[in-house]
Amino acid sequence: MSLTDQRIAELGLTLPPALVPPAGVKLPFASVRVVGSIAYVAGHSPQAEDGSIAGPLGKVGRDLDIEQGYAAARLTGLSILGSLRRALGDLDRIAAWGRVFGMVNAAPGFDRMPEVVNGFSDLIVEVFGPTIGSHARSAVGLAELPFGIPVEVEATVHLT
Amino acid sequence: MSLTDQRIAELGLTLPPALVPPAGVKLPFASVRVVGSIAYVAGHSPQAEDGSIAGPLGKVGRDLDIEQGYAAARLTGLSILGSLRRALGDLDRIAAWGRVFGMVNAAPGFDRMPEVVNGFSDLIVEVFGPTIGSHARSAVGLAELPFGIPVEVEATVHLT
Amino acid sequence: MSLTDQRIAELGLTLPPALVPPAGVKLPFASVRVVGSIAYVAGHSPQAEDGSIAGPLGKVGRDLDIEQGYAAARLTGLSILGSLRRALGDLDRIAAWGRVFGMVNAAPGFDRMPEVVNGFSDLIVEVFGPTIGSHARSAVGLAELPFGIPVEVEATVHLT
Repeated sequence: MSLTDQRIAELGLTLPPALVPPAGVKLPFASVRVVGSIAYVAGHSPQAEDGSIAGPLGKVGRDLDIEQGYAAARLTGLSILGSLRRALGDLDRIAAWGRVFGMVNAAPGFDRMPEVVNGFSDLIVEVFGPTIGSHARSAVGLAELPFGIPVEVEATVHLT
Repeated sequence: MSLTDQRIAELGLTLPPALVPPAGVKLPFASVRVVGSIAYVAGHSPQAEDGSIAGPLGKVGRDLDIEQGYAAARLTGLSILGSLRRALGDLDRIAAWGRVFGMVNAAPGFDRMPEVVNGFSDLIVEVFGPTIGSHARSAVGLAELPFGIPVEVEATVHLT
Repeated sequence: MSLTDQRIAELGLTLPPALVPPAGVKLPFASVRVVGSIAYVAGHSPQAEDGSIAGPLGKVGRDLDIEQGYAAARLTGLSILGSLRRALGDLDRIAAWGRVFGMVNAAPGFDRMPEVVNGFSDLIVEVFGPTIGSHARSAVGLAELPFGIPVEVEATVHLT
């Protein structure tokens, strides 16, 4: 068992299976694209244990409050860790997190996106520690996200 | 003739010339910025054969339907391929697509951005094949895009 | 004194100190994340000389006009240069700007984001010159930005 998987187990976390997209939706791209020592992580959503998109759906600041948005961002992190484990074979191959782009489906006037995306950042630092897990981040308000998901995150990580 | 140019000709596609921006607009940056083996592709719009921005303009889900959005995303792909050919000299220098960020000018409540940006992804896989053309992607809804364009795509590709 | 610092002094510019976030806001990420020869720059806002977020706040096209938006983008550039100098020790370590992602808090119907983000691009080319300072860019309209800031920029730069 890899050190990162041990840490995930210690934290009582489980990673979801591959995304089951909504019926009829074709997603002709890779969840993780590895080029040399860089892994580009596609935009991910919160995921339920059965692989489907996890609710609640809607806009943060209207349909979800900040705590629910934070939880959605944390689920999005688990979704990304699942994709990275499937793509890399072993999460210990991650040498450094680089860039995190956190997108919040923002109700008009809602401007507390950083507190929402902290659900993602806190998870990454819990799992990888502050050295490997450190990352540069933006947390911004999008007009619409696919299928009404409240949070979407894309990222770039570097491999050993 | 490069292999990629042959493939583009086989598919019956033509790449537009450099963008002719709207009158009075200054764009003080590079369409493609090559640093070592990485090429950063600036945000591109659909382009007409004369180099100008191609219509229809407006929001997908209000002024354009999904099929028109898909076509706009495909034209955006051709615009990017034109910029890459001018910057690199030869599209065969592209060893791997990495990251694609698809931005849709989304009408309120329109959440089918992935089907729109598939117009871009499908083109890249048709031209480069599934190995080189594979990419990580996000497809999200922006509040506004420059000049009312319906789709904008930026990307990162890796060179041999 | 580094060549870049000399140039900044010649231009009469001063770089702000580290960001003082609004009270109670936790930002658990790095302003600049260096991985090998790549520095990922987190989303930055306009900053005042005391390190706080600089006003005017609000949406460009409603609360700020284009000239005020341009000035906000320029202040955002100074904020990023301050973060890069603290992270790298010496701005002369920057070999090439790569990607710039300019996000404008856009009022409904405002589509002149490129003119706003030129405030950032013009600064980078003034300070680094056209060879090092050249960059690929997108300039797009977000629905909401944190704390109501009018402009946010994230970037990727390459180091010697």
